[in-house]
Amino acid sequence: MDNKSFRQGSFQSSTSDEDMVEVAGGTLDFSMVDDVPPLDREIEEGFSSYNGGGVNRASKMMDFLEEPIPGVGTYEDFNTIDWVREKSRDRDRHREITSRSKESTWALIHRVSDAFSGWLLMLLIGLKAGALAGLIDISAHWMTDLKEGVCLNGFWYNHEHCCWNSPETTFQDRDKCPEWRTWAQLLTGKEEGGALAYVLNYFLYVLWALLFALLAVLLVRGFAPYACGSGIPEIKTILSGFIIRGYLGKWTLVIKTVTLVLAVSSGLSLGKEGPLVHVACCCGNILCHLFTKYRKNEAKRREVLSAAAAAGVSVAFGAPIGGVLFSLEEVSYYFPLKTLWRSFFAALVAAFTLRSINPFGNSRLVLFYVEFHTPWHLLELGPFILLGVFGGLWGAFFIRSNIAWCRRRKTTRLGKYPVVEVMVVTALTALLAFPNQYTRMSTSELISELFNDCGLLDSSQLCDYLNDFNSTKGDDLPDRAAGSGVQAAMWQLALALLLKAFITIFTFGMKVPSGLFIPSMAVGAIAGRLLGVAMEQLAYYHHDWAIFKSWCSPGADCITPGLYAMVGAAACLGGVTRMTVSLVVIMFELTGGLEYIVPLMAAAMTSKWVADALGREGIYDAHIRLNGYPFLEAKEEFSHKTLALDVMRPRRTNPPLTVLTQDSMTVEDMEGIISETTYSGYPVVVSRESQRLVGFILRRDLIISIESARKKQDGIVSSSIIYFTDHSPPLPPTSPSTLKLRNILDLSPFTVTDQTPMEIVVDIFRKLGLRQCLVTHNGKLLGIITKKDVLKHIAQMANQDPDSILFN
Amino acid sequence: MDNKSFRQGSFQSSTSDEDMVEVAGGTLDFSMVDDVPPLDREIEEGFSSYNGGGVNRASKMMDFLEEPIPGVGTYEDFNTIDWVREKSRDRDRHREITSRSKESTWALIHRVSDAFSGWLLMLLIGLKAGALAGLIDISAHWMTDLKEGVCLNGFWYNHEHCCWNSPETTFQDRDKCPEWRTWAQLLTGKEEGGALAYVLNYFLYVLWALLFALLAVLLVRGFAPYACGSGIPEIKTILSGFIIRGYLGKWTLVIKTVTLVLAVSSGLSLGKEGPLVHVACCCGNILCHLFTKYRKNEAKRREVLSAAAAAGVSVAFGAPIGGVLFSLEEVSYYFPLKTLWRSFFAALVAAFTLRSINPFGNSRLVLFYVEFHTPWHLLELGPFILLGVFGGLWGAFFIRSNIAWCRRRKTTRLGKYPVVEVMVVTALTALLAFPNQYTRMSTSELISELFNDCGLLDSSQLCDYLNDFNSTKGDDLPDRAAGSGVQAAMWQLALALLLKAFITIFTFGMKVPSGLFIPSMAVGAIAGRLLGVAMEQLAYYHHDWAIFKSWCSPGADCITPGLYAMVGAAACLGGVTRMTVSLVVIMFELTGGLEYIVPLMAAAMTSKWVADALGREGIYDAHIRLNGYPFLEAKEEFSHKTLALDVMRPRRTNPPLTVLTQDSMTVEDMEGIISETTYSGYPVVVSRESQRLVGFILRRDLIISIESARKKQDGIVSSSIIYFTDHSPPLPPTSPSTLKLRNILDLSPFTVTDQTPMEIVVDIFRKLGLRQCLVTHNGKLLGIITKKDVLKHIAQMANQDPDSILFN
Repeated sequence: MDNKSFRQGSFQSSTSDEDMVEVAGGTLDFSMVDDVPPLDREIEEGFSSYNGGGVNRASKMMDFLEEPIPGVGTYEDFNTIDWVREKSRDRDRHREITSRSKESTWALIHRVSDAFSGWLLMLLIGLKAGALAGLIDISAHWMTDLKEGVCLNGFWYNHEHCCWNSPETTFQDRDKCPEWRTWAQLLTGKEEGGALAYVLNYFLYVLWALLFALLAVLLVRGFAPYACGSGIPEIKTILSGFIIRGYLGKWTLVIKTVTLVLAVSSGLSLGKEGPLVHVACCCGNILCHLFTKYRKNEAKRREVLSAAAAAGVSVAFGAPIGGVLFSLEEVSYYFPLKTLWRSFFAALVAAFTLRSINPFGNSRLVLFYVEFHTPWHLLELGPFILLGVFGGLWGAFFIRSNIAWCRRRKTTRLGKYPVVEVMVVTALTALLAFPNQYTRMSTSELISELFNDCGLLDSSQLCDYLNDFNSTKGDDLPDRAAGSGVQAAMWQLALALLLKAFITIFTFGMKVPSGLFIPSMAVGAIAGRLLGVAMEQLAYYHHDWAIFKSWCSPGADCITPGLYAMVGAAACLGGVTRMTVSLVVIMFELTGGLEYIVPLMAAAMTSKWVADALGREGIYDAHIRLNGYPFLEAKEEFSHKTLALDVMRPRRTNPPLTVLTQDSMTVEDMEGIISETTYSGYPVVVSRESQRLVGFILRRDLIISIESARKKQDGIVSSSIIYFTDHSPPLPPTSPSTLKLRNILDLSPFTVTDQTPMEIVVDIFRKLGLRQCLVTHNGKLLGIITKKDVLKHIAQMANQDPDSILFN
Repeated sequence: MDNKSFRQGSFQSSTSDEDMVEVAGGTLDFSMVDDVPPLDREIEEGFSSYNGGGVNRASKMMDFLEEPIPGVGTYEDFNTIDWVREKSRDRDRHREITSRSKESTWALIHRVSDAFSGWLLMLLIGLKAGALAGLIDISAHWMTDLKEGVCLNGFWYNHEHCCWNSPETTFQDRDKCPEWRTWAQLLTGKEEGGALAYVLNYFLYVLWALLFALLAVLLVRGFAPYACGSGIPEIKTILSGFIIRGYLGKWTLVIKTVTLVLAVSSGLSLGKEGPLVHVACCCGNILCHLFTKYRKNEAKRREVLSAAAAAGVSVAFGAPIGGVLFSLEEVSYYFPLKTLWRSFFAALVAAFTLRSINPFGNSRLVLFYVEFHTPWHLLELGPFILLGVFGGLWGAFFIRSNIAWCRRRKTTRLGKYPVVEVMVVTALTALLAFPNQYTRMSTSELISELFNDCGLLDSSQLCDYLNDFNSTKGDDLPDRAAGSGVQAAMWQLALALLLKAFITIFTFGMKVPSGLFIPSMAVGAIAGRLLGVAMEQLAYYHHDWAIFKSWCSPGADCITPGLYAMVGAAACLGGVTRMTVSLVVIMFELTGGLEYIVPLMAAAMTSKWVADALGREGIYDAHIRLNGYPFLEAKEEFSHKTLALDVMRPRRTNPPLTVLTQDSMTVEDMEGIISETTYSGYPVVVSRESQRLVGFILRRDLIISIESARKKQDGIVSSSIIYFTDHSPPLPPTSPSTLKLRNILDLSPFTVTDQTPMEIVVDIFRKLGLRQCLVTHNGKLLGIITKKDVLKHIAQMANQDPDSILFN
C-alpha cells in the first residue's frame, strides 16, 4: 500500500490490499481464502455477523424501525473490532435478560442457564481439547514408530505397546521383542541385519518421512491454508481484536489435527505444542456456536478463546497453572479476572481428560515428567546462568535467521513452491537424522531422555557410567567416571545439537503445522546435558578443587546432568519466546519441586535479558510484524515524545477532514462522499463552520441504512435530507421526506486533544481496545487517529517501515 | 458530609471530612494520625512530595521558570493520585536518562543501574519480608508456649525445642520431657498436678493472654494506629491510587511486627497471614526510599507494593505462585506484566529466605504442609460440594455479622473503649479456649493436625482408631473403626467449631493486628474433618452400601479425613474472601499433588457461588465500603443504563460549572474563585460564551504558582491578567505585567460526551486510573465527573448510601 492513498481522514478500510498478504512465514495470498471449503465458511458465518442487538450504544430508542437493520454492527474480514461497542452490546443483552427474568419462570430459567453457559462451554472445551490432544499423541507415537518397523501382532500397535504385550520382553531390554520387526527384517526375512538391512531401513525411513510430509503439505494447501505454522501469532492478533474468518473454523481444525500428526511423524524438527494451542482455540471457537451469548459477540468470544489457549498449553505440557499464565502473559489481550478463573477450569478439565486417556502409559500428562533426587548447590548457579546466556544468544540468532529466511520466502520465487520446499527440508532432515540415534528418535522422546536422572537400572547409553558398586548407597548413584557409552553419546549429542539448531530455522514457517517449543527445548536440553556431564566429570576428577571441595566429596551424588538439561531447555525456550513466569511455572509443574524453580528462574531471566539486548521481539511478535497484522503490543511502553497532533490525519498540508453535518446533507451528498472516499467511518459535526463534534458513523452502517431506507421507506429520494438530530430540521413544506439516522450514530466517540502525548494515546488504544479516536483542539474537531495510524507511528519511531502495517 | 455541599463542579477536596473517618473496624479518628511519631512522618515524606519532574505532561517548555515550583504536582493526604500523570512523569524521567546516557560513561552506568534497581529492590524486599516472617513465626511460637510453661534449660526455648534437646524424650512422647515445666509445676514444685495445678495453669494461661493483648492494644493505640486490623482493605485502596500517609511507614512496620506477635500469642482467634501482607508492603514502601525512581513516583511505587504483597502471601503460606496470583487477583489494581515477573522473583526470594531460617524445623515453609497417599473417588465430590456450601454459607454469615458489629462499634459508644473491648474478648477467648485442647493450641497447629493424614506412628487423639494389625499393609492404614479418642475428639472439635465461628466475628476489626485467613481456615478444617471422619465411619460400617461398594472394600484405605479438612478450609476461606484461582493455587502448593486440585476447585467454586448469592462483596470489599474509601472495584461490571449526563456535576438545576477563561481573568478573579470554591481543579475554556475546552488546572498547582509568582516575579499585582495561551493577549500598554501559567495547565484532559453510557465511563476510570473526566455536548464543555461522583453513582444504583463515599 503506498503512502499516497492516505489523504484526508485516513482511516480507510483496506479491502484493496487483502489479496497480497502473507501468513506466518509462507506466502499465503488471501485469495487462497476462497479455497476454504464451504463447510468452514458456514461455521464461520457467525464470527462476524449479528442478527440483532443494540447497535448504537447510546441510543435509547429505535427510530424508524423497531428491528435493527440486518448487517448493521457487523465487521468485514481483516478488520479490527471495536471492543467498547462489543462489550456494550453484551451488557445490553445481559440487562435485557435480567429485566425479563422477573416476568416469567421461563425467562428466569433462561437467565440462570445463560449465567452457567460460560462454565458449560469451558467444560466442553476442556473435554474436547483433552481428547484431541490424546488422539494426536497416540497417533503421532504410532506413526513415528511406523517409519522404523511394524508390529506383527497388529499393525496398530506402536513399538512400545507391541513389546509390552510380548511374553519375551525382559525388563532390561524393554525395546526388543520378536514381534516388532524393522522393515528390513520384514522384507529380507532375516533376523540379524547387516549393511544391507541398515541401508534398507535408512531408505524406508526417509521414504516414510517424505510420504508423511507430502501428505501434510498437500492437505494444508488443498483444504485449509490456515492450518500451517504454529498459529500462535495469528491467535494473538485475533485475540487483540482482529477478524480473520476461517482461521478458527471446523475445517482448519480437522486438517490441522491430521496434518499435525503427519508433520510430527515425518521427523521434521517441529513440535506439536504450539499447534495444540491453535487446535484448542478452534475447539473453543466452534463450541461457541452452541451458545448465542458467545456466537454473537466478538468480545465475549475472545474471552472464551483465551481460556481455550490456556487449555491448549495445559494439555501440551501437562501444566494447567502454567497454561493459564501462558494465556495471560503471552497470548491474551483482554483478560478480565472472570476469564482467569474460567481458563483455570478449562485447563484443568483438559488436563484430566488427557490423563484419563493416558497416552504415554505412565499416568502422567507429558512424556518428559521428571523427578530429581539431589538438591543443587549455590555454586551451580554459575553454569545455570551460562546456560541462560546460551539460550539468549541462540534465541536471538534463531529469531533473526528465521525471520530473514521467511522474508526471503515471501519476496523471492521460493515462496511459490511450498511443496518442493517441504520435500527438500524433510529429505534433508531424514537423511541427516537417521544415522544418529538421538535425532532418529522423536524429539519429545529425546527431551525425555535428556531430562532423565540416571538411576541404578537405567540401561540407556547416556547412563553408561563406569560402575563402582562399593560406593553405591540407597537409590542415588554417586558421581562416577563416564564410560564409553557416555563418551559416544556426547559426540552424537553434539552433532544432534548442530542439526537441530540449524534445520529448525528452515522448518518453522513452512506450509505444514509446526510448533517450536519442542525444537527449542531440544536444543537447550542437549546443550544443558552436555554441560551437565562436563561439570559432573570435572567434579569427579577434580573434587579436590576449591570450588568443589565444599559440596562435592568423592562418592557423593552432587551433580544432576538431567537438571542441567532442564535448565537449558527453559533457557532456549525463553530466548525464543521471551516467556517468563509462564515458562518457569510450566517447568516447575514438570518437576513438582519448589527448589528447582531458582535455577530455572536464573536461566530464564538471563536468557531474556541477553536476548532482549540483541533484539526486542520474541518470535511470535516478529512473525506478527512480518505479516503486518495490526497488533498493539501491551508489553512494550511507547516512549517517544510525540503528540497526537503529529500522528493524526489529515496532516497539516492535506485538505481538511471529511465530515458529515448533522442536519443539512442530502442522501445524494452522502452517497457522493461514500463513493469518493474509502474511509471506514465519518465524524458528524454540527456544521462545517463550527466543527463541533456530534458523533461518529461507520461507513458500513451508513451504506446499509441508506440502501435499506431507499428500498423500504416511502419518499426517500436523492434530495432527501439526512439528519442525525433528535428532531427533524425545519424545512420548506415542498421538500421531500427526511431520513433520520440518529440510531446508527455513535454519540460517544472517544476524543483526545491535539496536545495529548502519544504515549497516552497509545495507552488509551491499548487499554480500551479502540479502533479510532477523534482529535480536537479547543473544542473543534481537527482530525482522527486510527489503530493503523498508531501502529504506523510506532513502527516509524522504531525505525521500521511504517508500510509494513497492512490492516486496520 | 451532607449532600448540599455539592453544588456546581462538585470535585471538592475533602479536607473538611478527614477528621472523622474510621479504619477497618475500629473508630479511628484521623486526628490520631498526628499521633504518628515524627520518625514515621519523616520516612513518609517522600510518599507524596516530589522535588521535581515534569509537571504538565503536555508542556514542551518551561515558561517563566526553568525549575518547576516545589510542591507543584504533589498530592495531599487522603487524595487520589492521577495514574496517567504519574506514568507520564516516569516516562519523562526514563527518556531523560536514556538520552543523557549517550553523553558520558557515567550517565550510561546510571542508566544501567536504573534499569536494574527494580530487581535489586525486589531482592531486598524478598530478603526483608522473609526474615521478618521468620522472626514473627519463631517469636509467636515461643510466646504461645510461654502461656503454658517454661523451659528449664533456657527460657528462650519453646516447648518443642526444649524437649528436642532433652535426652529423656522418646519418639512416642515427643512433647513430654522433664525440662519443660508448666507454670503449676514450677510454682507448686510438684511433678504431678491435680485440680489445683489445673486451676493454676488455667489462671496463668488467661493472665498471660490478657497481658499480651493489653500490650498489643496499648502499643497500637499509642504508637501506630494504622497497625491494627489486617491491612488488606487499606492496601487494596492504596494500590488503587489513594494516599494514606504513614500507613506503610517505618513506625507502622515496627509496631505491627511486635503487636502481631503479641496478638497471635495471646490466643485470640486471629491469624498472622493477612498482617504479614501489610508487613511486607511496609518493607516494600520503606525500601522504595533507597531508589529515586520509586521514591518520587506514586505509580511506580505501587508496582513495588503489588510485588511486596505477593511476597507477603508467599511467606505466609509458603506459596510463591499462589502469592503472585493473590496479588494479581485480590490486591492489585494496576498490574502490568513486568510486575508479574518481578513479583514472582520477590515472592521466591522471600520464600527461600524463610526456608533457610527454617522456623518450623521441618524444612518446610509452613506448619501445615501435607502429603496425602490415597487418591479420591469421584463420588466424594458430593461431600466436597457440601463443604463448599457450608463454606459459602458461613462466609456470607461471617461477613454480615462482622460488618454489622463493626458498624455498631463505629456508631455507638463501644468504639470509645478499644482497650476494654480487646480485654473482654481476650478474656472470653482464653476462658473458653483453655479447657478444650483443640482451642488451647495455636490455631495454625490445630489446622496442621486437622490436615494430617493418620499414619502408623501417629499418637494424636485424632488418630486413635481401633487397631487391626492383620489388615495393615505398607504405609497406608486401612479404614478402621473410630476408637474412644476419636469419639472424644469429635465432641471437642464440634465445640471448638462453635467457639471459633462466633468469637472471630468479634475479633476481626478490633484494635490489634488481626488476619482472618487462619480463623476461617480453622472453621472450615474442623467442619471438614468432622465430615471426613463421619464419611470414613460410614464407609467402614456400611461398605456394602451401593455407593461405597465400587471403591471402598473392607481393609482398603479409601477416605482421607485430612483431605476433607483441607477442602473445608479452602471452602470457608473462599466464602469469606471470595478468592478463586489464588486460593486453589495456594492450597495446591501446600499439597503439591495435581489430583487434589479438583476437590479444592469444586469446593471453592461452590463456596463462591453460594456466598455470592447471599451478598456480592468479600470481607475486604465490605470493609473498604464500611470505611468509605474511594475504591473502584475492577471485578464488578457496572450494568445500569445511565448516561454521563445523569452523573456529572453540575446537575441541571444547579448553577453552571465554575470555569476559568484562558486569557481574560486577573489574579484577583482567580483568587476569588479559589477562596469561594473548594473544588480540587478547574477547567479552562476559550471564553465563557463559547465554552470551548482548553485544559484543566489543579487547584493546588494554581495556588502554589500564584503565590510563588507574587513573591518572585516583579509587577504581578491583583489586576495582572493570567493567561494560559501560548502568547500574551493584546492589552493596553498601561496594564500591569501578565502572568503566564500554561506550563501548569493540563492540555490533554480526558473528555467524554454527555451521551456516553456510564458503563463506559466507569470502564475508562478503572482502566486509565483517572481522577476526573470532563463532559462535553456538541463540543461545548458541560460538566465534570470525578472518581467520587462515579463511586457515589455506583453506590446509589446498588441501593446503598451514596454518602458513604468519603474521599475523592
